[in-house]
Amino acid sequence: MVNVGVIGAGLMGSTHARLLATAIAGAEVVAISDAVHEHAQRIADELDLSTIHADGMELIANPAVDAVVIASPAATHEPYTLACIEVGKPVLCEKPLATSAAAAKRIVEAEAAVGHRSVTVGFMRRYDPGYADLKARLDAGAIGAPLLMHCAHRNPSVHPFFDSAMIITDSAVHEIDVTRWLLGEEIVRATVLTPTPTSKAREGLRDPQLLLFETAGGRLVDVEAFVSAGYAYDIRCEVVGEDGTLELLPPATVALRTDNAESQAIPPGFRERFGTAYLHELQAWIHSIARGSEPDGPSAYDGFAAAAVSEAAVASLESGRPVDVAL
Amino acid sequence: MVNVGVIGAGLMGSTHARLLATAIAGAEVVAISDAVHEHAQRIADELDLSTIHADGMELIANPAVDAVVIASPAATHEPYTLACIEVGKPVLCEKPLATSAAAAKRIVEAEAAVGHRSVTVGFMRRYDPGYADLKARLDAGAIGAPLLMHCAHRNPSVHPFFDSAMIITDSAVHEIDVTRWLLGEEIVRATVLTPTPTSKAREGLRDPQLLLFETAGGRLVDVEAFVSAGYAYDIRCEVVGEDGTLELLPPATVALRTDNAESQAIPPGFRERFGTAYLHELQAWIHSIARGSEPDGPSAYDGFAAAAVSEAAVASLESGRPVDVAL
Amino acid sequence: MVNVGVIGAGLMGSTHARLLATAIAGAEVVAISDAVHEHAQRIADELDLSTIHADGMELIANPAVDAVVIASPAATHEPYTLACIEVGKPVLCEKPLATSAAAAKRIVEAEAAVGHRSVTVGFMRRYDPGYADLKARLDAGAIGAPLLMHCAHRNPSVHPFFDSAMIITDSAVHEIDVTRWLLGEEIVRATVLTPTPTSKAREGLRDPQLLLFETAGGRLVDVEAFVSAGYAYDIRCEVVGEDGTLELLPPATVALRTDNAESQAIPPGFRERFGTAYLHELQAWIHSIARGSEPDGPSAYDGFAAAAVSEAAVASLESGRPVDVAL
Amino acid sequence: MVNVGVIGAGLMGSTHARLLATAIAGAEVVAISDAVHEHAQRIADELDLSTIHADGMELIANPAVDAVVIASPAATHEPYTLACIEVGKPVLCEKPLATSAAAAKRIVEAEAAVGHRSVTVGFMRRYDPGYADLKARLDAGAIGAPLLMHCAHRNPSVHPFFDSAMIITDSAVHEIDVTRWLLGEEIVRATVLTPTPTSKAREGLRDPQLLLFETAGGRLVDVEAFVSAGYAYDIRCEVVGEDGTLELLPPATVALRTDNAESQAIPPGFRERFGTAYLHELQAWIHSIARGSEPDGPSAYDGFAAAAVSEAAVASLESGRPVDVAL
Ligand SMILES: [Mg+2]
Ligand SMILES: [Mg+2]
Ligand SMILES: [Mg+2]
Ligand SMILES: [Mg+2]
Repeated sequence: MVNVGVIGAGLMGSTHARLLATAIAGAEVVAISDAVHEHAQRIADELDLSTIHADGMELIANPAVDAVVIASPAATHEPYTLACIEVGKPVLCEKPLATSAAAAKRIVEAEAAVGHRSVTVGFMRRYDPGYADLKARLDAGAIGAPLLMHCAHRNPSVHPFFDSAMIITDSAVHEIDVTRWLLGEEIVRATVLTPTPTSKAREGLRDPQLLLFETAGGRLVDVEAFVSAGYAYDIRCEVVGEDGTLELLPPATVALRTDNAESQAIPPGFRERFGTAYLHELQAWIHSIARGSEPDGPSAYDGFAAAAVSEAAVASLESGRPVDVAL
Repeated sequence: MVNVGVIGAGLMGSTHARLLATAIAGAEVVAISDAVHEHAQRIADELDLSTIHADGMELIANPAVDAVVIASPAATHEPYTLACIEVGKPVLCEKPLATSAAAAKRIVEAEAAVGHRSVTVGFMRRYDPGYADLKARLDAGAIGAPLLMHCAHRNPSVHPFFDSAMIITDSAVHEIDVTRWLLGEEIVRATVLTPTPTSKAREGLRDPQLLLFETAGGRLVDVEAFVSAGYAYDIRCEVVGEDGTLELLPPATVALRTDNAESQAIPPGFRERFGTAYLHELQAWIHSIARGSEPDGPSAYDGFAAAAVSEAAVASLESGRPVDVAL
Repeated sequence: MVNVGVIGAGLMGSTHARLLATAIAGAEVVAISDAVHEHAQRIADELDLSTIHADGMELIANPAVDAVVIASPAATHEPYTLACIEVGKPVLCEKPLATSAAAAKRIVEAEAAVGHRSVTVGFMRRYDPGYADLKARLDAGAIGAPLLMHCAHRNPSVHPFFDSAMIITDSAVHEIDVTRWLLGEEIVRATVLTPTPTSKAREGLRDPQLLLFETAGGRLVDVEAFVSAGYAYDIRCEVVGEDGTLELLPPATVALRTDNAESQAIPPGFRERFGTAYLHELQAWIHSIARGSEPDGPSAYDGFAAAAVSEAAVASLESGRPVDVAL
Repeated sequence: MVNVGVIGAGLMGSTHARLLATAIAGAEVVAISDAVHEHAQRIADELDLSTIHADGMELIANPAVDAVVIASPAATHEPYTLACIEVGKPVLCEKPLATSAAAAKRIVEAEAAVGHRSVTVGFMRRYDPGYADLKARLDAGAIGAPLLMHCAHRNPSVHPFFDSAMIITDSAVHEIDVTRWLLGEEIVRATVLTPTPTSKAREGLRDPQLLLFETAGGRLVDVEAFVSAGYAYDIRCEVVGEDGTLELLPPATVALRTDNAESQAIPPGFRERFGTAYLHELQAWIHSIARGSEPDGPSAYDGFAAAAVSEAAVASLESGRPVDVAL
């Protein structure tokens, strides 16, 4: 049994804690922490946890904790991850791995100094059955060599504090990871274009955005990132290859025919859309720990690369020009 | 140019007249007739027709008329069709060819006495791009030998005078023709089952019905016939063969994503659903006349067979037992 | 932690044991048994189990076993289930609950004598996300009152010992349960029709079959049961209501465009199609045991009712006539 | 009856001539011309035409010709169209209207000097049922104000003489027109990006290309133009609005389930994909002539604007930089 401590009792931390406690084989949640004690208490009560830590460092140090999930605010990811590396505990850190490419690089280097992988970054889409199937078929040559990729990332709405850069660093960062993972190549240049914003967005928010990525091998990827899309949480991805295309299908399971139309539901949010992905992500992570093997999920380097591409994209958002990625 | 006279200025007659006048190459409408003079007048005005006949027999006799479309009430189909055969004018008769199998047989025999085909029955589904594609693939062996067929025929609603037998003779008669045409076999036995009716149907109407047909080669066909379906005009057809299945797709051309769903329109009525089929039916009929060749659309015998199966099905509706078809 | 013993190390038993050991929270597999020792040994080795029992009765009696999964041959289901009831251990019995309605009734009565539910029957479709969504929408009134249901159950192929009755008792029995569960009504009459069999079926096998069920409330259900369908494992279900229809969608997650077509995979077998359903079924069962609450999955009575309908359908297969269900 | 002369007996000219002769109401083909006499002769024989002209100017001058279709090589479009304007005959000119924006502008001015519209440009997509439906719903407000548009234009292959600029001027020019028509705004800037070309393209061909258009109102449009796509002729279009999205569906009418997949055909070429659009385009043009009204299809100005955007895009293809459109 892997005894897990969860840092952060917000939306993501609660989700992970619940899954670990009720849906993941071989894991138990033994401790939780949150800057707001009441948040930690609520989850502790719900899941019958005995230990609440005042802060994440204490939780990491707790000898009853075998492995750590970090789901606290982004600014805390670097110190917590570094602490886990230091004490040699496997850690699953929610994205972003750190708030800058430089910080992420420090984590990569700290882990390298130890000599084996212990850091996994929460790019859960790699565990989504649709993306995983797409990746498997692509690698099996179903469409030949990839040439282009078309993506859309649409959120129904976001919190008022969401700014134009966060559309890249918080939302489109998933497409940055998906691009690197599906195509197996680094992104070397980013351009961000901004059309007239939707009237539904907060004043000043550049929403939607059209991101363009160029890879080392000359593939082009376009990403519509749109966080005030209103109608649903909708994720699209089509890879165009030399012999055909592969495209994610919406995850509907039932068709309704009524009122002169056939309709299929689109999920309202990321938890409904990627619930299964979170489950598979956690289960794979727990299995790798139980087996004593290195994790094979997204690595610290993946977290660093995503941060570096995000920085280039944010710079392009400001300048309106293509910006090279510094890897 | 083929000069066409149209008998009947109701819904179907008007539709045919308009198509012939505005969308069919090589045809002109030269005369119209209707028991209600105002109906004929309205179409004559709309299409700028000079000749209105008081009755269909006069129209058939008019030497300016090369070919005749019959779209008057069902009871008049037999005498008008026989008159067309007599004077040797090609005739396209709306279904049903006649109101009884015996009457339809008289038409078959009258045509046979003349020695060449001049009668075409308006089973327009054979000209629908979807059904035509399904037929072509089936005949090309895409799914091997057919074994079963599942159909649904759903109307949003019907006129108050529609009775339980008309669900067979007026609606499901299309599936009877489709079955014979797709499978290339006669239907030898019919059974009609009636579940608890929808509360939306008129008191006493057995709606929906489940029709079962057995063919000479032992294929089974089930047809849901449902004329108070409410939500749309929806036609479904799946043929199950030894190597797979072929299924009609709904005719939508655009997907709308809004309000947490992706939706595609389903047509409100048969004219929207089968508009293209009517067009192709008429154009093929006009071309065959212009070429001087025999028509190759649904024949008088097809009209007779449909009537014979309808009679067996109506008898089964009454008795609740399987009834053999008398061909 | 719920300590589970698994009786039967064949296809289904192995599947359940693997899921319980590696994918279900709160469960451990502590013992296995199989009539063929090598089969039990193989799974014990794979999952690192210490205890192999020579027979199921021994396993049930083992005090280290908290709960039992029965996945041995159908003839053994009754005695094993009765033994579990007697010793008061929760049991999940694969379908069929017993090989006759009379035997199933004995189980119902034995459980009733104890006074609380301990038997769950493995009708896993109730846990499939598609069926569950369909049920939720139906119950929420999305299509009004149900009137008809159209189903297809297609297996690519079956073992040579599969006979015509097993198409009902082994395959279509799932649709029998689904019908009762979705419509919330008992099936009161069954009719089985058999078209000309596919040439791909073993000589003498009546395959496909068309089953017709009538419910207490007068709903009609048709089920195509076809176990030599060849092309895939394909499950279809459409419920027709007063305001529209609800239909299961195929479970594909990716569309491939190549060779002049867009295609989506259909699963090759029931484990791929219903893998998630088995997972949810087991997790819900383990949770109910851990909570100490009665199971809320398919009950012994559901197993009995399915057996009674199966018997009527098999009788109809032989007589060709509608047969009333004896409940 | 409108008597039409067709200039050009190649692929497009033959298609138009055949449709006019056999599928369009109210039209007759009375003359044809082609630089290669045998080509003209072949169509004249097929359609039983009495008059073959040695060149297009002669055909235009022929008093038996009421209206002219121009489907000769692009370089001849300007002089023929100007000649039609001069003699006052309605003309349907295949795209491009002319080989440069300057030439197209001369046509616009010549028509304006006459004072009424007589030129229609063959942007047939406006008559495709899918595009027409999308336009109607967009204008009806189904998705609110448009913000972005994602397009793909994929040809299976092209002739060896096709060069990188023709991917814009010959293929993507349809998307240029579709953008202006759907969004109701001019394109003010074009950028062309080129990924590593497919290995299936001729040496030196920049294929695929990613075109980016910015409209006067700040909408962004991306177009994948890919003429060696191999797998099919595939046209995609999604408009993203403030309240949702509208997307063209592939035109399949039948689903085939076999070999572990459900598949739907994608057309092999533009004639199969847009056959109905050509029909509607010609019928609308003939009706407008027969009515004596001005044509309401794509105008000379639309032809000019498409040429101006094409020129900017070709300049961007060469420079790799955004290029302003000179309107
Ligand atoms: Mg757990
Ligand atoms: Mg006409
Ligand atoms: Mg377990
Ligand atoms: Mg014509």
